Amino acid sequence: MAFGWIDEQAELRRRAGLVRALRPRAADTPLLDLASNDYLGLARHPEVTEGAARAARTWGGGSTGSRLVTGTTELHAELERELAGFCGFEAALVFSSGYAANLAAVTALAPHGSRIVSDAGNHASLIDGCRLARGTTRVAAHSDPDAVRKALDGHHGPAVAVSDTVFSVDGDAAPLTGFAAACREHGAGLVLDDAHGLGVLGDGGRGAPYAAGLAGADDVVVTVTLSKSLGSQGGAVLGPARVIEHLVNAARTFIFDTGLAPAAVGAALSALRLLRREPGRAARAGEVARELHSRLTATGLEAVRPDAAVVSVRAPSPEQAVRWAADCRAAGLSVGCFRPPSVPDGVSRLRLTARADLSGAEIERAVRVIGETRP
Amino acid sequence: MAFGWIDEQAELRRRAGLVRALRPRAADTPLLDLASNDYLGLARHPEVTEGAARAARTWGGGSTGSRLVTGTTELHAELERELAGFCGFEAALVFSSGYAANLAAVTALAPHGSRIVSDAGNHASLIDGCRLARGTTRVAAHSDPDAVRKALDGHHGPAVAVSDTVFSVDGDAAPLTGFAAACREHGAGLVLDDAHGLGVLGDGGRGAPYAAGLAGADDVVVTVTLSKSLGSQGGAVLGPARVIEHLVNAARTFIFDTGLAPAAVGAALSALRLLRREPGRAARAGEVARELHSRLTATGLEAVRPDAAVVSVRAPSPEQAVRWAADCRAAGLSVGCFRPPSVPDGVSRLRLTARADLSGAEIERAVRVIGETRP
Repeated sequence: MAFGWIDEQAELRRRAGLVRALRPRAADTPLLDLASNDYLGLARHPEVTEGAARAARTWGGGSTGSRLVTGTTELHAELERELAGFCGFEAALVFSSGYAANLAAVTALAPHGSRIVSDAGNHASLIDGCRLARGTTRVAAHSDPDAVRKALDGHHGPAVAVSDTVFSVDGDAAPLTGFAAACREHGAGLVLDDAHGLGVLGDGGRGAPYAAGLAGADDVVVTVTLSKSLGSQGGAVLGPARVIEHLVNAARTFIFDTGLAPAAVGAALSALRLLRREPGRAARAGEVARELHSRLTATGLEAVRPDAAVVSVRAPSPEQAVRWAADCRAAGLSVGCFRPPSVPDGVSRLRLTARADLSGAEIERAVRVIGETRP
Repeated sequence: MAFGWIDEQAELRRRAGLVRALRPRAADTPLLDLASNDYLGLARHPEVTEGAARAARTWGGGSTGSRLVTGTTELHAELERELAGFCGFEAALVFSSGYAANLAAVTALAPHGSRIVSDAGNHASLIDGCRLARGTTRVAAHSDPDAVRKALDGHHGPAVAVSDTVFSVDGDAAPLTGFAAACREHGAGLVLDDAHGLGVLGDGGRGAPYAAGLAGADDVVVTVTLSKSLGSQGGAVLGPARVIEHLVNAARTFIFDTGLAPAAVGAALSALRLLRREPGRAARAGEVARELHSRLTATGLEAVRPDAAVVSVRAPSPEQAVRWAADCRAAGLSVGCFRPPSVPDGVSRLRLTARADLSGAEIERAVRVIGETRP
């Protein structure tokens, strides 16, 4: 049978206890959410959901085509202008997902004969971007500017270093200033995925590149998601206008994809405006993360000190991580559970996300449940 | 400067007259639309936009995480059930775009040591899927079952043939029965992208695989978009439950992407229910396409006979294609303009899309404008 080999893989997964299944959630789940990437608690905010509803009514359920044909509306242009301005970049380009934005940025900026230096901890979408790009990739040791420097050494022609600003699994921040210095010594560009930085780091949530003084630099390109702090869906690339123009002409995931739906554009725009008006939300997400971390480590748990809003707590094994997450769930707390092959280092962990809108009592409850259910 | 090489490419594009620029449209554009992929005219239908608005209010502006963490709602599950049922498949899996669905299907079904046979006319997202997959790709001559047969010859181990059902640029349909026979002789799977078939072909718009008697077969996997006939955003993979389970566990663009936004899920679900209730819309899109084709060719223009809702009209050169489309636009008609490098054959053309809701007067006007502006 054509797909018979699938059953063998499924059997291997079952034996290894690594089967993943979808668990649809209800609209009014009573679970306390420390698993989503809704860092600012905006996904359910009435201004954001009304922004989505209004955009759908005004512009339609979909954008109806590629952004180069009928898929660009004035609403897309408005979001691009405001997002670029907020993060301190000249221009922005919105995609249907952060995944698509990363594929676009890496492939379009790494042509034939170029070199890509990719951080060992990078997100799957950056890795796939490297694999699709025509340039040659070297993987550099995690968060190590010297490794980037060495990997760029001796190369002539276009080059880029590619890194997350905040790594999704452990929530640790990359050494952006060090990366920028290494790139500049070699005339290389720097492509940063700020998916977990936007809305949390930098003045009022302007992101990690802004905080590092890299926003608006002519050799820095940043990708962001609209689906985390901004409570919507989609991604964007921010950078010099000439880079954005280049992407419009060269990035396949831009040219050959349907434009982001108006509702998602509208939701992201409403969230962005809300964040401008209430900049304290950004700092609050970080505070909650640090409080979670200090309380959890005080009980003897091993956790990575959070640089943004992700708190990673070690589990003894994949099986125990799964059971721990299930026990939390049974006690009313939703947490993320990362295990191989999602984590490259083979270390399983619970992944907690701080939300700016968590109350003191909710933090208290989360810490208690995690402690009581520990393996 | 890091991105200096971009300026040289931009200059080459300018000299070749191949510069693309975004043209944001207004919500109330007076242009007659023959450029979008809104084949059934549902993107602005009040039931569809209300479906989007209601979903955003009930479920939030975004899905808040990977479908494996917090990004799967009961609404996603509902759409997957109804979509699979409508198209005649056991199960379905929704993605944030058709692009992501294609990357998922091809990469997850073409492991190390496998062979992929890819039609020469395939969409960019299928090509990128082949490039990302671990299997080895052979490109087969366009719409040629014998070429597929030959490309599968002598291979042992997993194999898939991959093809659009209706090709985006010329609107010609693939020989699905021939493809299936070629695959079955070799025990290979068949992966079909029905982006331009769903909603237009098959009984009541159930799609090209349904029309060809391939729906529900254990060796056939179909991808669709929610952004064309269904007037929303997103994509889906349809197939045997075991293949869908496999994708949940193995497809990187599923695991590492944020789930489709509730508004897009709601819009697609409303459109699907509307299409079930008004199945005549599907046949009407095809009728409009055939009418456009016969009227245009009657004026001496060269156009491909439409198998679905896309009508492709030849232009003498890229420059004249661009001018022709611009002249149509100036006369109030929006048409697509495809030219290198979007078209692999180097032939530039206008791409017209029939909509089920075009009136006789609108068709009349479109034909007149295209004729009057011809180069």
